[in-house]
Amino acid sequence: MAGWGDLLGYAAATLTTCSFVPQVWHTWRSRDVSGISLGMYAVFTLGVFLWLCYGWLAGAWPIVVANAITLSLALAILAMKLRWQRA
Amino acid sequence: MAGWGDLLGYAAATLTTCSFVPQVWHTWRSRDVSGISLGMYAVFTLGVFLWLCYGWLAGAWPIVVANAITLSLALAILAMKLRWQRA
Repeated sequence: MAGWGDLLGYAAATLTTCSFVPQVWHTWRSRDVSGISLGMYAVFTLGVFLWLCYGWLAGAWPIVVANAITLSLALAILAMKLRWQRA
Repeated sequence: MAGWGDLLGYAAATLTTCSFVPQVWHTWRSRDVSGISLGMYAVFTLGVFLWLCYGWLAGAWPIVVANAITLSLALAILAMKLRWQRA
């Protein structure tokens, strides 16, 4: 699969990676973390870290780059959840 | 890459897919959607749909199955956000 298929994959990766930017911004501005599931971000962050390791082992740099960005955004949301959940 | 590498990929896919279950449950019980970013779930849902199309075109069934489950969970969160955001 090449051409359109590759383009579709890059579009999908860009959207799922960038989608966490509005959540980081929303949470940073509102400090409203009660509706965010700690379980989701704990499990998701670990999963994205494993994707990063998988990409590294496979030498698949698009997977490494996309998951490194997603990992940093998910960690930011997780940190804000832990920091502000009792405020 | 096989063996440990494949196992790592399946573990990563399982975690990132299942991570949305606690968020669906948390939102369903609390109806607390103010801290959830509409932008995130709109963009994420579209991205997961494109991953599903990519997997379908590539005949990569693990990608199709994982993204079909994630899509249904993300759609549930998006629907609850839209339904309850003004309540």
